[in-house]
This record gives sequence, C-alpha cells and structure tokens, in this order.
Amino acid sequence: MQAVVLAAGLGTRMGNLTSNLPKGLLKVAGREILYRNLKVLQDLGIKEFVVITNPKYEDVYKKFLNSWKLNYKLVLNKHPERGNGYSLYLAKDHVNDKFVLIMSDHIYEEELLKKAICCEGLIVDKVGAFISPEEATRVKIKGERVEDIGKHLNTYDAFDTGLFVLTPEIFKFAEALVNKKSVVELSEVIKEAKVKVCEVSGYFWMDVDTPEDIKKATKLLIRLSVKSKGDGWISKLLNRKISTRISYFLVNHFTPNQITLFTFLFGIFSAVAVWWSIPIAGILYQVSSIIDGVDGEIARASMRTSKLGGYIDSVLDRYVDFAFLFSLAWKIKPSFNMWLVILLAVFGSVMVSYSTERYKASFFEDMYQKVPALKFLPGKRDERIFAIMWFCVFNKIKWMFVFLAVLTNLRVLLTLILACIHKEKN
Amino acid sequence: MQAVVLAAGLGTRMGNLTSNLPKGLLKVAGREILYRNLKVLQDLGIKEFVVITNPKYEDVYKKFLNSWKLNYKLVLNKHPERGNGYSLYLAKDHVNDKFVLIMSDHIYEEELLKKAICCEGLIVDKVGAFISPEEATRVKIKGERVEDIGKHLNTYDAFDTGLFVLTPEIFKFAEALVNKKSVVELSEVIKEAKVKVCEVSGYFWMDVDTPEDIKKATKLLIRLSVKSKGDGWISKLLNRKISTRISYFLVNHFTPNQITLFTFLFGIFSAVAVWWSIPIAGILYQVSSIIDGVDGEIARASMRTSKLGGYIDSVLDRYVDFAFLFSLAWKIKPSFNMWLVILLAVFGSVMVSYSTERYKASFFEDMYQKVPALKFLPGKRDERIFAIMWFCVFNKIKWMFVFLAVLTNLRVLLTLILACIHKEKN
Repeated sequence: MQAVVLAAGLGTRMGNLTSNLPKGLLKVAGREILYRNLKVLQDLGIKEFVVITNPKYEDVYKKFLNSWKLNYKLVLNKHPERGNGYSLYLAKDHVNDKFVLIMSDHIYEEELLKKAICCEGLIVDKVGAFISPEEATRVKIKGERVEDIGKHLNTYDAFDTGLFVLTPEIFKFAEALVNKKSVVELSEVIKEAKVKVCEVSGYFWMDVDTPEDIKKATKLLIRLSVKSKGDGWISKLLNRKISTRISYFLVNHFTPNQITLFTFLFGIFSAVAVWWSIPIAGILYQVSSIIDGVDGEIARASMRTSKLGGYIDSVLDRYVDFAFLFSLAWKIKPSFNMWLVILLAVFGSVMVSYSTERYKASFFEDMYQKVPALKFLPGKRDERIFAIMWFCVFNKIKWMFVFLAVLTNLRVLLTLILACIHKEKN
Repeated sequence: MQAVVLAAGLGTRMGNLTSNLPKGLLKVAGREILYRNLKVLQDLGIKEFVVITNPKYEDVYKKFLNSWKLNYKLVLNKHPERGNGYSLYLAKDHVNDKFVLIMSDHIYEEELLKKAICCEGLIVDKVGAFISPEEATRVKIKGERVEDIGKHLNTYDAFDTGLFVLTPEIFKFAEALVNKKSVVELSEVIKEAKVKVCEVSGYFWMDVDTPEDIKKATKLLIRLSVKSKGDGWISKLLNRKISTRISYFLVNHFTPNQITLFTFLFGIFSAVAVWWSIPIAGILYQVSSIIDGVDGEIARASMRTSKLGGYIDSVLDRYVDFAFLFSLAWKIKPSFNMWLVILLAVFGSVMVSYSTERYKASFFEDMYQKVPALKFLPGKRDERIFAIMWFCVFNKIKWMFVFLAVLTNLRVLLTLILACIHKEKN
C-alpha cells in the first residue's frame, strides 16, 4: 500500500514557528509531526510515500525525508491557495491502488493508525476524547457513508480524523471539482464522492494548528507514554503526576539516555546525602524515584525507546537502591543482630526485581500483565522508596530495615506462589 | 505428512525386559523410546501415525497411544515372522502421500528428526559418532541412491539410520517381494526400490536391541542434555562430569521437580552446616552446586523440561547462595568494615544473575549465546561456589567476602559494557 501526505498548507496560524518550517516538520514531544506518522506507517508495511507540498518547502522536506531511509516521491503544488482538495488531485498520477491519505499536521496514536489501515474510507471518531469539539471537522453519516462534512454542521454523528483509506476512484471526483472551481477543499471531494466511513473511536489524535496545540499535544503524548503495568500505587497517585510534568519540560531538550544517567547520579547523590542528613536524604531518594519515570516517558513520547536503555536503567536502579541502604547501614552503626536484618533487607530488595524479571526471561511474557494479582502485592520499588522516605524523615532506620527484610522476602515468596498458580491454571 | 512406525518385532534380544512390553515401550532415560520419537514428530507437524504391531502387543500399544493426545491407526501384523518388509507392506492402505518411516526401537536426537523430515529417501549418517560400526546396517551409495544395504557389506559409504521419508511408490516394490517370498526384510525393499539417500550426519541416534543398549542410550541422552552455554569452567571440568553420573542413576526414579526441591534443601543444609564446621560446610556447598545440575539434566533427558521448573530453580538458587553467605557472616562475627564488604558481596552475587536475566527479559535472547565474550568473564555461580569452598576449607572467610565483593560487582560492570558493545555493533 502507498500513502499520500498532504503537506502543501502554509501553516499561517503557527506564527513565527512556520516562517522557515512547514507544519509537518515542527517538533512535538521531540519528534517532527510527520516523522511520527510516517515511521508508524512504515512499520505497518506502507512501502511508498507520496508527499504533496509547495515549492517553498521543497528543500526542507527533501532534506528531512532523505535523512532516514524512506521510499518517497515529492510532488510540488504550485498553487497551494487552491485548497487541499487540489493537492489531493495532484497525487493522481502517482497512486495506482488503495492508499492511505494523511494530513501532515495531524498526530495519531500508533494503535489508531494500526486499526485505520485495515479500514476503508474516512476514519471517524465518535468519542473525540482528546479534541475540542468546536474546532473539529464534523461528519454526518448516512448508511455508512459521508452525507455531509464540515466544521459548522449543527447535527453530526462523528468527527473527521483527517485520515483516510481510499481507492484511485476518488481522483475522478477531485478532477471534476478542480475543473469547475478554483479553490477545492478535501471535504468537498469527500462529500461529493460519498466516501464510506469507518469508526475507530477513543484513541488519541489531533490536528496541530497553533502553538497552543503543540503544547497540548506534547502534554497528551507524555501522558499516554506512561506505561503503568509495573507501577505501584505511589507511582500512580504521586510520582507519575510529577514526572510527566518534568518530562513535558525536558522532552525537547534531553535524550532518554542523558536522563537515565542524571537519574542514576541523582540517586547516588541521595545515598551520599545520608551523611549530611538522613531526613533530607530520604526526601532526595523519593525525588530520585519520581525522576526515574522521566527517561521512559521521554523515550516513549519521542519515539526513542531502546531496549538497551531500559536494560541499563534497570541495573542502575538496583545499584541506587543498594547504595542508599548501604549508606544508611554505614551511618547508623548497626548492632550485630541489626546487620543480619540489613542483609535480609538488601538481598530481598534485589530479589523483588529478580523474581519478576527472571519470570519474563523464562516465559517471554510480562508477569505484571499476565498475573494481575501481582499488581496488588505491596512492595514494588516506588512503594518501598516512599516508605523508606518516611522512615528516614522520622529517623526510624532500624525499623525500616526490619520492615524491608520482611516485606521484600515475603513478596518474593508470594510471587513464586502466584507464578505457580498462574502456570497451573494455563 | 503421516508417519509409519514399524513396531511388530518381538524384541527377543532384550531378555526379560520384553516379556510383557514391546521394545518401543521400554523406558530409556525416563521415557518410552516411542514416546520420544512420536512427540518430536508431532511437534514437527506430523498429523497422523500408523503403527504396525503384532497382536500380542495390541493392548499395550493401544493403552500407551491413548494415554496422550495422538491421532493414530493401529495395524496388526499377524505374521511378524515374515519380516519388517512385510510390516511396511501392511501400511499400504493407510498411507496416501509422502510419509516418514521410523523404527519403534530407534532413538534420535531431536535435531536429526528435524532435518530428516525435510529430506527424501533413506536418511544416512556418514559419521556414526554414537554407534558401534560393527553392529550398524551399512549402505553403499551410487549416484545418490542406495546401491546395496546390509550389516555385512565390506565396502560402504554410510550407515542406515533406520529413518526414511518415502512416497507410496515404495509399496509396489514391497508388494512384489511379499508375493515372491515368505520373509521380506525392509532392507530388501529399499535396495530393490533403489531409494534415494539423504545425509544427516553427526547427530545422536542408535537402535536399542539389548539391555546394554538401554544403558548406553541413557548415558548418551544425559550427556547430550547438558546445556553448557551458561556453564562456567568448574561446571565443564568437574560438576557436569559428576552430575551426569548422578542423573544416570536417578533419571528413572525421580522427577525434575523432586530433584529441584532436594537440591534446595541440601543447599540450605550446607548453610546450616556452617555452625558445625566451616570447611565441611564449604564442601557440602560445592556438592550442592554439583547436584544443582541434575534437575535440568533429568528434565531434558526425559523430555520433561518446564519453564516454571527452571524459574523456581533459579530463584531458589539465589536463596541458597544468600543463606550460605548469611550463615558465614553470622558465624564469623564480622567487624564493622567487614560488614560493609559482606553487604557488597551478597548484593553483587545476586546482581551477577540479575544482570544476565534482565538482559534476557529485555531482548528475549540469551546473553551467553549472543555475547560470547561473557563466557570468559569469571564469576559464574559454579566458579564462585568452587572458590568459596576453598576459602572455607582454609578458613579464610574474610578474604572470601573481599574476593566476592570485588569479583561480582566487577563482573556486573563488565556485563553492562559487553551488552552495550554488542548492541552498538548490531
């Protein structure tokens, strides 16, 4: 399948941002809008991209499209003022079968694109969970086809996502309109052709028209980047609320690996701070736990996830946890019996991670996904660190070690039992 | 594809063993010979099995074949004395396309069967690494076809593995011979038909004719069950040599899970023994390290591997290692500084496992397989335990903790570096 990208618009509502760059090449959460869609479509098996743009943007688009391996054709629209229906018409000679039609300034969640390319016609969303309904293009449907389409329809059934799967038949309708009028909007062509509709509702998508839209889209992309399956209660209720805000400010300025390194150093710093003040160190440790979410969020939001990054991050997390407990043990000069408890606590803390990661290594499946009961076991890292902070604040370090020694090893035992129950059942 | 199993022979050379059971149902390394082949063939996609046996064994074969989900037809040969060529002839009306022909008393390595079913004709082995050449059936080849076949050929090119991939055309030759003679051996049919040959050399296969053959096959299956990719030097040079001998005696009597439990309890016992005598505890710990190989060997040799078993075994190993170091620390009443070293040693010991298992959980590939340099890093479990034993024997426990603290954490660091190098390259 081919894809046609309409990218001839001048993006006048973007102000200064589009003085040199077309809208499709503006960065949202660290990635060009167009990169996001083309990368996903490429991964979904689209082999060729026909990009319609105007001569002003020819060079920047060429530079951009050449920078990563992509099979594309650039078609110049010398009359962008004739509307995006005219742009579509220009794709006529470059398309020979069913094709995806996509706007250069729309952002879509990967799952939406995945479902859309199995559809036929205009992809509509009946929920519109992430858009402003007053700004969106509305669609009136009759017998599974478009009856009317436009921003100002009073009664409507769904929103136009700006995404289509069409056949070359559409060009007949486009041509007829182009021959009749000087300005032809895509919506007119769609209405004229009574294109089929296909509902893919509830996913994130939006068109990015103004600088505020960029901010909104960045926020939403980061919110969607929270992978919550391994998160404990503290992550869900506290850490993620803060880390996503941090990610929002950092996503355009730092790579995930830089954040991973910073988080590690900050964690070690919190361990060293024990020598200065245990309560403050505890708070810093909890801060490091919050920051620990940022690298993953930025990686997912900017489509820069790397398994190696995730691997290194995990091993470094274990060393941060060790360093903090090590430092506390050193500081409090424990009794003989307390040392034994500390050994159990340090060992149990790694084993919590070991027992679930080893499960994944055996079964090649995520235990948090497959064994839902595991989510309800207390003792995940975010929860432990939050508890450790309070023990530090109230300077009850010995009780903290007792608490950890019991909690972590009990959790490992229950993890083993849950794994056995799950595997017996299946 | 179908498979035809020749199982009409009376197994006279087995003595008492075959008074009630046919050869195919004798257990070798904890599994019936026939189970081994049929299970692998079933997993390779063979849908139907035609088993030719004599009326004496009808009931036991039915019972056996019904005991696991298998699509089979039992064909009775009322004249087993007419030879296995006659048995093959009886399959005639039950086979309608290309089929695998297999002897009920032959054992094959899985990899051999996998390659064989992509072949056509008689599967021959030019190496015969695991058989006695004087006992084996020899094949003379001319232009990729069988020219002569028999036990007593003086000049020959390869050995007959007793495994074939044939077309129904073979039945014409069988029928002609059956009509002519009273006793027809399979080798005569093969020679007459000038069957093609296909070489699959170097794998383990043997036919099991005598009680000695059963012993030999059991030993070889256990030897082949050693999965050496994660083994350190001590495993290779010492532990496996002993554990395979233990496995040989236990494989018919215990399940892998029973051995896993015993190994865990024995390991904990070695940790408790520290209170009695450190040198003896060290030796017991090394013994537990040897036994630790047995469950896996028995599981693989008896085709009872279970991912859950492997998972539980790994987590329990970590607890045994912890228990031993914990017990030693308790016993030696360490100084404050030594406690810090002990923390590092205990933590590092788990992290050696964590760092490779977490790699597997990330990349769904075995780090020992993908990053060969990792094999040469010292500090794997078998090596650590062997070193710990000597430290215990000479009662140098403090030095042992220093050694472990440095070795294990250094190994984790190098593991991370190797992972980065490997992923950068690929």
